[in-house]
Amino acid sequence: MSLVLIGFMGAGKSTAARRLAGALGVEAADSDRVLEDELGCSIEAFFDREGEAAFREREERVVLELLDRDVPVLAVGGGAVLSERVRAALRAHTVALLEIDVETAWERAAGRGRPLARDRDAFAERHAERLAIYEGIADAFVPHGAAIAEVAGAVGAMEPGTRLVWARSASGSYPVWFGEHVWPRPGRCFVLTDESVARLYAHRMPDVGLAIAPGEASKSLATAQVVWEALAAAGHTRADTLLAVGGGVVGDLGGFCAATYQRGMPVVHVPTTVVAQVDSAYGGKTGVDLPQAKNYVGAYHQPAAVHVVPSTLESLPARERAAGYAEVVKTALIAGGALWDSVLAGARDDPDTVLACARTKLRIVAADERDAGLRQVLNLGHTVAHALETVTGYTRLLHGEAVALGLLAALRLSGQDALRGEVAELLAGAGLTLAVGGVDPVAVARATRMDKKRVGERVPFVLVEAPGAVTPGHAVEDRDLLLAVQELVA
Amino acid sequence: MSLVLIGFMGAGKSTAARRLAGALGVEAADSDRVLEDELGCSIEAFFDREGEAAFREREERVVLELLDRDVPVLAVGGGAVLSERVRAALRAHTVALLEIDVETAWERAAGRGRPLARDRDAFAERHAERLAIYEGIADAFVPHGAAIAEVAGAVGAMEPGTRLVWARSASGSYPVWFGEHVWPRPGRCFVLTDESVARLYAHRMPDVGLAIAPGEASKSLATAQVVWEALAAAGHTRADTLLAVGGGVVGDLGGFCAATYQRGMPVVHVPTTVVAQVDSAYGGKTGVDLPQAKNYVGAYHQPAAVHVVPSTLESLPARERAAGYAEVVKTALIAGGALWDSVLAGARDDPDTVLACARTKLRIVAADERDAGLRQVLNLGHTVAHALETVTGYTRLLHGEAVALGLLAALRLSGQDALRGEVAELLAGAGLTLAVGGVDPVAVARATRMDKKRVGERVPFVLVEAPGAVTPGHAVEDRDLLLAVQELVA
Repeated sequence: MSLVLIGFMGAGKSTAARRLAGALGVEAADSDRVLEDELGCSIEAFFDREGEAAFREREERVVLELLDRDVPVLAVGGGAVLSERVRAALRAHTVALLEIDVETAWERAAGRGRPLARDRDAFAERHAERLAIYEGIADAFVPHGAAIAEVAGAVGAMEPGTRLVWARSASGSYPVWFGEHVWPRPGRCFVLTDESVARLYAHRMPDVGLAIAPGEASKSLATAQVVWEALAAAGHTRADTLLAVGGGVVGDLGGFCAATYQRGMPVVHVPTTVVAQVDSAYGGKTGVDLPQAKNYVGAYHQPAAVHVVPSTLESLPARERAAGYAEVVKTALIAGGALWDSVLAGARDDPDTVLACARTKLRIVAADERDAGLRQVLNLGHTVAHALETVTGYTRLLHGEAVALGLLAALRLSGQDALRGEVAELLAGAGLTLAVGGVDPVAVARATRMDKKRVGERVPFVLVEAPGAVTPGHAVEDRDLLLAVQELVA
Repeated sequence: MSLVLIGFMGAGKSTAARRLAGALGVEAADSDRVLEDELGCSIEAFFDREGEAAFREREERVVLELLDRDVPVLAVGGGAVLSERVRAALRAHTVALLEIDVETAWERAAGRGRPLARDRDAFAERHAERLAIYEGIADAFVPHGAAIAEVAGAVGAMEPGTRLVWARSASGSYPVWFGEHVWPRPGRCFVLTDESVARLYAHRMPDVGLAIAPGEASKSLATAQVVWEALAAAGHTRADTLLAVGGGVVGDLGGFCAATYQRGMPVVHVPTTVVAQVDSAYGGKTGVDLPQAKNYVGAYHQPAAVHVVPSTLESLPARERAAGYAEVVKTALIAGGALWDSVLAGARDDPDTVLACARTKLRIVAADERDAGLRQVLNLGHTVAHALETVTGYTRLLHGEAVALGLLAALRLSGQDALRGEVAELLAGAGLTLAVGGVDPVAVARATRMDKKRVGERVPFVLVEAPGAVTPGHAVEDRDLLLAVQELVA
């Protein structure tokens, strides 16, 4: 079995193959170099003389031969995966996609004689087309700029049926594993979970250190104190790992307790809800609620790893699973493109959708870990959602249910009435209600003022121009906010 | 008035002068360059031809002329301050010492024709002699490697009678101000203090946000919750500043609450006790105690600034002031050299000693912010001290009193019986008792096992070979530990 590196031109496949092979102590090959040796001339020259079809034929033959020989690490030309026979052959191997955005790829490839890098528009179109193919066959996703030496251990250890997304941020990188067999097998660790999850999955974990009561009420300082004291009582040091198995509450609480126990121990997340698998397990935001407002006490603490077992979603209560879908819709609105298309077409929380949501979130966190700007788009729908949760005492609404309502408010404030209609239909189709009774809209509007993002008297809103075009920092009139909230509390 | 840069050869005075002047938008001059213009040859050539005495005479004249002209930023030759007349003239100016260790200085200066950098031993001796002179006249201390553009604002704003130590660490740099007039005048801030400090200094601060009960019992999660809720109730955001005015408890608690309120707001410390001015206000360790053990919940959070007003120590109760002296002795043992000599000669907590202790602590933190190795020397005496505090329920002993006992234990474990005698005499002379009654030594020895530094079953100890030669990570036999503790609980 080979580890095969794919990706668009300029992604650095040849260099990465050499580095990966070096780190793993094995041999590397590069299909483009092998092909040039065989052709006896440069790819550019052959391509210009014989045309793309002839080139693809020769390329296919070389790549299939190399795959057949099980070269340990193999970089293949950016277009080789256009061949259906190559794609079929790749199924028996581990395929790692080296990601690169179109701007960087163009900067690197243009003006260097590459036959497919001569026209900017055609280049961008090709990048988008190829990306869909790459993403369809990749087992591992390696973001541009990741330190290959760090990634090597993870991709080298991949087992059949697992997928890997490498997460990058300013303060650290970590693997995110997806698959039915990725339950972690850590060493000295303290397992934090909730009672429902413990009932279902205790046999998949090491001994449970503490199982808290399920629900947002546990995301409190009182519960944090129970966790810290349990860690101390069990004699854990900061060299051990806290394993947080559960939904957003367990993850946020566990992450915060790990961030602050003895000034910081590693945390590994095993998210078991849609919200956690799609959003909250990634990016290092941890915290607990104060009576006054959500997430008011917390820390940034990137996980040491995240392990996503898709089938855990099947045991969720229908209400919770539906609530989690609101975060899928939020993420798809932010991502736009293929993810939005598939959600609009009915995708909910299947493994591919969850993985695509995770990649969207991780891409944003990689660019802005500490919420200086871009990351704030992830708050789409959350300002009103947090206010609704505060006003209803964190008990009546699940977080995702509040986010569903918050998304509708954000779309109204964005003036996107048609898109709001589509989103309302998606949410209702998943069983979410589009209004909450018995709530004072004035109180909700007032509670948005407690948002941590507040700057002076104003709360900046995240607004939507179109799927894929979501921006933070918008001013909103009090009157408009009240109207947008009133619709939800009818 | 000029800003005058002094420091040993190789410290980078000329470059720093140009950068500082650039950042402040003023002119810079360099006495060595002016002198060479006047001599009509290089300093090296003149020095070799005419000898040091002739050179110093010419140098003195040039430097005095430049000082008289109030050049805004002036770099002066490393040996110019040997002249008493130059030192006298410098009193009217702000003098900033660019620090450089002897190894780096030698690497930079050797083999470049410098007349005083031809013999390694003589060079090191000269470095030590000069350092004492530099430190005696400096108003500002700028560590090697500090970003001059960051430092410029602080040194440019220095007022007569204030001193400045620039603090560096991996996660951030900040000014430490010393002087009677350095009470901070911040913008939007929340003042955390204790009731005793509030009674004495409320008139020096903005409105007090919260005054906690004095004493270690306030360093708890319960008090942290009161702080977080008060911050939320007052509508503070992470853009505001928490101003912690008080001793180690207020600083550790305030630092932790700031580190975690809305995932991190800036904290400015105004330490008012010996322990805080000498040690705990610097370096970013924050936290609260669990019932099981001290400082078990916390975070690393470097302050945005520290403001040290020496006279606040005069209002301390005698017992607390004496307890703080134990941290002075600890720091002097770690530093060795001039600081140890002056403490051995009777210095306690005068402004020069406090500043020297602060510089020692900051030097160690700069090299190892996250306690990976070197920083652990700061724990000298603290393993037994924490255990004594735990066993006595944090109420009978002040932290410094426990540290005094812990130092004696550490010196016994180090086999330094004579030095232990000297330290015991110093501690007793300051009014500290050298034993605590009614405590089970076995319980104390057992409680050391809860130390956060524990690796597996072993607690590594910090031991002393001589003042200035203190190292972490030593294994200690249970029997020896018990003997060292038994002496203290007689």
